[in-house]
Amino acid sequence: MTFIEKLAKAWATSGSMLTVGLDPDPQRFPAELQGHPDAIFEFCRAIVDVTAQYACAIKPQIAYFSAERAEDQLEALCDYVREHHPDLPIILDAKRGDIGSTAQQYAREAFERYQADAVTVNPYMGSDSITPYLEWDDKGVIILCRTSNPGGSDLQFIESADGTPLYLRVAALAADRWNGNGQCALVVGATFPEEIAKVRARVADMPLLIPGIGAQGGDIPSTVKAGLDSQGTGMMINSSRAILYASTGDDWRVAAALAARQTRDAINAVR
Amino acid sequence: MTFIEKLAKAWATSGSMLTVGLDPDPQRFPAELQGHPDAIFEFCRAIVDVTAQYACAIKPQIAYFSAERAEDQLEALCDYVREHHPDLPIILDAKRGDIGSTAQQYAREAFERYQADAVTVNPYMGSDSITPYLEWDDKGVIILCRTSNPGGSDLQFIESADGTPLYLRVAALAADRWNGNGQCALVVGATFPEEIAKVRARVADMPLLIPGIGAQGGDIPSTVKAGLDSQGTGMMINSSRAILYASTGDDWRVAAALAARQTRDAINAVR
Repeated sequence: MTFIEKLAKAWATSGSMLTVGLDPDPQRFPAELQGHPDAIFEFCRAIVDVTAQYACAIKPQIAYFSAERAEDQLEALCDYVREHHPDLPIILDAKRGDIGSTAQQYAREAFERYQADAVTVNPYMGSDSITPYLEWDDKGVIILCRTSNPGGSDLQFIESADGTPLYLRVAALAADRWNGNGQCALVVGATFPEEIAKVRARVADMPLLIPGIGAQGGDIPSTVKAGLDSQGTGMMINSSRAILYASTGDDWRVAAALAARQTRDAINAVR
Repeated sequence: MTFIEKLAKAWATSGSMLTVGLDPDPQRFPAELQGHPDAIFEFCRAIVDVTAQYACAIKPQIAYFSAERAEDQLEALCDYVREHHPDLPIILDAKRGDIGSTAQQYAREAFERYQADAVTVNPYMGSDSITPYLEWDDKGVIILCRTSNPGGSDLQFIESADGTPLYLRVAALAADRWNGNGQCALVVGATFPEEIAKVRARVADMPLLIPGIGAQGGDIPSTVKAGLDSQGTGMMINSSRAILYASTGDDWRVAAALAARQTRDAINAVR
């Protein structure tokens, strides 16, 4: 089953467009995990177990693992998810951006080592930074388009002579040149619903990964209205810290589950 | 000593603007290292030992280590270089591109875990994807500007209404907004000498990391003429495969040293 098929199935069976972002920061872990040798794995595993039923995907952010020398715990987490939640797509958030043989190594990292279903990539280096991932024809390639941060406008809003901003040029490249095998998705931030709508209009039913709700201030109703595809789905709406650190007390698992369920419900209230 | 100071010292003492790129591909290793448990470390260590005298920096490409689960060997390599070649700057080629707390984790990966002197980063997400690295005020931040690959033109050549291509907008952001503490450098490919000259004219004496000579076809004389700064230096001209795999026979160390020396000399012949 391809990533796109797995995602469509997850949308249907979970009834959710929530993606749970795994940004494990040991300093914010609950007391029971402080000092645990595999605290990152144990924390993420527990979060996945209690939130999986409310989610269409999980998205581990590799930077948090790499900074803690915890690649082995990320491998173990991916193994655990495949075994215990086999229908839950794993998106490796790595935002890799390189070319040729180096991009091939990054693709091996994502798809062989971690066996992720999809990986996020950066388009600044152009086509030869995207195509090496597409050779893995069952995998998803999720391309940065319009990011949710304030500085995103520094480059992405630069308009060419015909008035097209850079992020829409990226959307066009994805739709017209890189999506021949239907593997692509785009990252579009929830902090800019008007731009989500413009991207959606340009890329038809291509899935959108949407960060920026919760801590970053994106509004759920306007995001969902802007991003729905023709099937009434089409989005992976990410929430990380608002779920992971909903409580740092003994009730952290229940609090995370509740936060995930509430976010799912807030998304579905608009559909 | 800051990265920029260390680099200037290396230019002066080595008389070289060659950077040796470490892209270790085990399938291309010499016979004596096949099956060695730490083959990646041993290969890279030997290459550094025989080429250090001809180089102003080394640049390990992290993708090659990550794809092989060899982060520990990259750590050991960086430790070895610091101990045995303390004046040789280590550039971690990671092309990271993320924001906020995630970028902080990538900075920790580069500057705490590997203790690199500089890291390459991707500017697509704008200022808040650059500034977290700048908080490490003795470290170098080397920003992708005009890359050496054919697809680099897909985005980097897009012109805004006033005719400025995107890569020169990045150069301007680096020079005017991100270089307040003098920590920045830019990646500009050797396959485009005219564009090296335009970047050099825009950023004064900011160092340039220049990939694309050798296997990628960049011409050394035109590259050097285009990129020299007002001090007659200013470049880290990278060569990876042409040095690493100069021979796969028993003479691989000598062949790598000769290739590095010849490249240094070819660069210096133009100065």
